[in-house]
Amino acid sequence: MKLQPELQEYFQGVLPNIEACIQEQLDSLNSYVFPVASHVLGSGGKRLRPLLCILMAGAMGHREASVYPLASALELVHSATLLHDDILDNSELRRGERAAHLVFGMKETILAGDALLAHANKIVADYGNPDLVNCISEAISSTVTGEILEIQKMRQPNLSQAEYLDIIKGKTGYLIQSSCESGAILAGNRSAEREASRQLGLNLGVAFQLVDDALDYSPAPDLGKPMGGDLREGKITMPLIHFLQELDAEQRERFLTRVKDKALSEKELEETMRCIRSRELHIRAREEAETYLQAAYQALASLPESREKSLLVRMLEYIRTRDY
Amino acid sequence: MKLQPELQEYFQGVLPNIEACIQEQLDSLNSYVFPVASHVLGSGGKRLRPLLCILMAGAMGHREASVYPLASALELVHSATLLHDDILDNSELRRGERAAHLVFGMKETILAGDALLAHANKIVADYGNPDLVNCISEAISSTVTGEILEIQKMRQPNLSQAEYLDIIKGKTGYLIQSSCESGAILAGNRSAEREASRQLGLNLGVAFQLVDDALDYSPAPDLGKPMGGDLREGKITMPLIHFLQELDAEQRERFLTRVKDKALSEKELEETMRCIRSRELHIRAREEAETYLQAAYQALASLPESREKSLLVRMLEYIRTRDY
Repeated sequence: MKLQPELQEYFQGVLPNIEACIQEQLDSLNSYVFPVASHVLGSGGKRLRPLLCILMAGAMGHREASVYPLASALELVHSATLLHDDILDNSELRRGERAAHLVFGMKETILAGDALLAHANKIVADYGNPDLVNCISEAISSTVTGEILEIQKMRQPNLSQAEYLDIIKGKTGYLIQSSCESGAILAGNRSAEREASRQLGLNLGVAFQLVDDALDYSPAPDLGKPMGGDLREGKITMPLIHFLQELDAEQRERFLTRVKDKALSEKELEETMRCIRSRELHIRAREEAETYLQAAYQALASLPESREKSLLVRMLEYIRTRDY
Repeated sequence: MKLQPELQEYFQGVLPNIEACIQEQLDSLNSYVFPVASHVLGSGGKRLRPLLCILMAGAMGHREASVYPLASALELVHSATLLHDDILDNSELRRGERAAHLVFGMKETILAGDALLAHANKIVADYGNPDLVNCISEAISSTVTGEILEIQKMRQPNLSQAEYLDIIKGKTGYLIQSSCESGAILAGNRSAEREASRQLGLNLGVAFQLVDDALDYSPAPDLGKPMGGDLREGKITMPLIHFLQELDAEQRERFLTRVKDKALSEKELEETMRCIRSRELHIRAREEAETYLQAAYQALASLPESREKSLLVRMLEYIRTRDY
């Protein structure tokens, strides 16, 4: 993740603590779950959720080491959802490496996901703060509902933008929302600031996902992922939804079936990529992210000035300008 | 479940409230998860965990309707573990009906399990009591660890009784322990009584499972389950462990592989059943349950006298004498 120097410097400062805490949590897992959890937690995640939690706690004046278990628990929840999600999607790749269920087996991966969720819940429970537990429980529940919605809706050839936005709110937005909110709760839970942290997190999360979707269709070198990885993996994201909307009903249904079955030939893949790029449908997804980024800026504006607040502004700039 | 009249009467009194609360919780689930969750929650579970939670809360003086969401959440957790467990075991039957993953598909069943766990966590979080959240989180974590241990150990032909007891403590004992403990916490959390509730629950849970194992090999009519269901389903339980220990190493390994592959012929199944019965290996499992029942009685004895305490004594008697 290429961040602005100021944000990069802050990130370098907290990252060793995040990693040490994740490692400690990994070490306490059963030896059977450990390799599966290590595989997903060690494969170059951006640690976006822990970072946001720490930044938000800091912006509210809480700058103590007690934030790290909470921050790391959010990465555990995120990893647990990735493990189950890759089984559900029958994905072959995760961050450029073979998905856990193909390396370790399905049973092992289901259980590792369950164990990570249970462990994260325990870490959060240990804070003895009911608001914190509520916040994380709510996020896990919403994330699962988002995954369910995805499975329900993705079968429909006429998936609308609004429906897709609901799906990414569920799958990505609410956990990022709770990453920010839980930081605010830890810092003292003043209701106006807590609401601002929710708005910031949800909007940042949706924007992040839309940009991520767009980058998969961008001509820039995409390290780790093969070009057009989402399309190859049968994943329907915003640029493809725009593309589908330009087809007639019959074409759309036929094409979508081939995408879902991962049955597109290399030539069809290239053709579709070229078409999406030449019509700038991926750029359109970035423009849609702009609405969410603006809402996130607005939420941030209501917070008192602090180093962390200005770093969160940098974070939004990073998402806006991210090119790989 | 055939209970003594006094316990039966109490159970009939609380059951409609338990069922109404479970139904309410089901109704709030996503429409995609609802049928899967209804299938497992509606298929004649004994509601042992809710009942124990209510009895224990009552024995500590808490007899209010606020116990029901907690009691029902325990059944949700139990059902979630059954859903994932049946996928892991590739089980075909659950309480005499086709297992959910065969009726609804694997994806749907994984997600329904995740959704039930998340929902149960939310219900418990809503009590705003960190001790309660800790108790349930700990139980979920231990149950998953028990399932992991089962997968690890069940491949070994020389599985010992001690190892099997560890597995059922994990898979069954800790959730039943937390059913009792959470009732005690809700009632006011006095430390000596809370420890007694833990001891009662864990020992009752292990005894319950050992008796359940034994009944599967008993000649009495077993409603719902086909005779020798565990053996057919490739499940290794205590009577079979005793049987395996009487074979030599080579025989044992060969036989165990066939059991795990569900490859036993009808004749071999009958032969094994007959052998276990004639050597009374299932009776031996019941005798082992006795040790745990005694520890459970002892834990109960330390509690103050109450209607619920005497009903819990009846519950232990029921487990001891249960014949189907």
